[in-house]
Amino acid sequence: MYSIPSSNSEPSRPFLTWQRILDWAQERYRCRTFNKDEKIPVRPGLLYLVQRGSVRLVGISQVSATSSSASRLGRTTPEEAFLGFVGAGQPFEIVAQSPFTLQSYAHVDQTTVLWMYWHDLDNWPHFRREVLDAFRYQHQRKLLWLSTLGQRRTIDRLLGFLTLLIEEYGEPCENGSALPWALTHAQIGSAIGSTRVTVTRLMGKLRQRGLIRIQGDNQICLPSDVLLRG
Amino acid sequence: MYSIPSSNSEPSRPFLTWQRILDWAQERYRCRTFNKDEKIPVRPGLLYLVQRGSVRLVGISQVSATSSSASRLGRTTPEEAFLGFVGAGQPFEIVAQSPFTLQSYAHVDQTTVLWMYWHDLDNWPHFRREVLDAFRYQHQRKLLWLSTLGQRRTIDRLLGFLTLLIEEYGEPCENGSALPWALTHAQIGSAIGSTRVTVTRLMGKLRQRGLIRIQGDNQICLPSDVLLRG
Repeated sequence: MYSIPSSNSEPSRPFLTWQRILDWAQERYRCRTFNKDEKIPVRPGLLYLVQRGSVRLVGISQVSATSSSASRLGRTTPEEAFLGFVGAGQPFEIVAQSPFTLQSYAHVDQTTVLWMYWHDLDNWPHFRREVLDAFRYQHQRKLLWLSTLGQRRTIDRLLGFLTLLIEEYGEPCENGSALPWALTHAQIGSAIGSTRVTVTRLMGKLRQRGLIRIQGDNQICLPSDVLLRG
Repeated sequence: MYSIPSSNSEPSRPFLTWQRILDWAQERYRCRTFNKDEKIPVRPGLLYLVQRGSVRLVGISQVSATSSSASRLGRTTPEEAFLGFVGAGQPFEIVAQSPFTLQSYAHVDQTTVLWMYWHDLDNWPHFRREVLDAFRYQHQRKLLWLSTLGQRRTIDRLLGFLTLLIEEYGEPCENGSALPWALTHAQIGSAIGSTRVTVTRLMGKLRQRGLIRIQGDNQICLPSDVLLRG
């Protein structure tokens, strides 16, 4: 009961509790559906649950070592970093803000999110524990993510990043596992401290070496032997 | 009660509970003191609490896009990434392992750590909630950390990284806030995907621009106006 769910496992949440929470949120108009790339307004102190679809977390930097006068005059564009997905059944919250701003977007059409205050969870103590365990799990995944971003070579960060994402969210495909959602090369670059152009070049290298495959609707697929090598 | 502690605040933990937990751990020999850079053995499923000193979390990569045959023969050194500190009064756990290995080290001499099973927390339900809230807070900090590591320019990642560390762990110093523990340039490089040599060069630039100061025993200090700019 205290263990963190392993990757790829179905949410262990009892269907009945989830249905009751959904009904509760709908009765209170605390449930909304978003289109792809629509911004999901979030406030600190509230807990959000993804009912359907996928949420993309993004960090926006306000710190720059250079051209601080230019940025004060709004002349530079702040950099946006892709920070990960929150899939169906998973919670998210946005509290910390400085010196970066965290934001959330619907990553696919028909993404439905419901929200509540933390004290609303007093109604469902068992569910509260599941939510907190889910945050423990997300925290551990972010530590792994930081591990790969510490690697010096961009191609290693790229492969590590894709491996972690597919390990967590991948769905079975021919001889491997594929990310169910598209990610642009610019979004990948924003996550690993690189550019769209470099990501495109390095993705080509990884494909040549047989470390990734692209299939169907631009889905990134990792062959099983690459996943198992980890 | 549900809020995440703000940075720099004293642990809100009632002294009596903490003392009871300490006594409980000592009676069971679940308490040990480590020297600087000594490895702290950790097992999944256990919860660790830092009683004194500071713990350094490290991630070791086992994924590389190149020279996979060389690494299989053990010819390449795996890269180690600095993932952050866990200060006194704070919990940590290490669960996720693949495709990176997470490890913990005492960052300073006389670092004392105690441990327990999660179900041992049944004795202290209020304390359990504090531990889980601490993990929520750590998770949010890691999202900010990922935001800066997504920045393209190494100098921006370096300043963002130092700002986040000092915002969280800094202690007041003349006209600013300083990191109470030393970090080598190699450790900083391992966190931001760069090298010792580059970090040394960029730290020089940041000093010239007045964005950081070095004081006393090689402590990194951020002037208040830099911290407030965020």
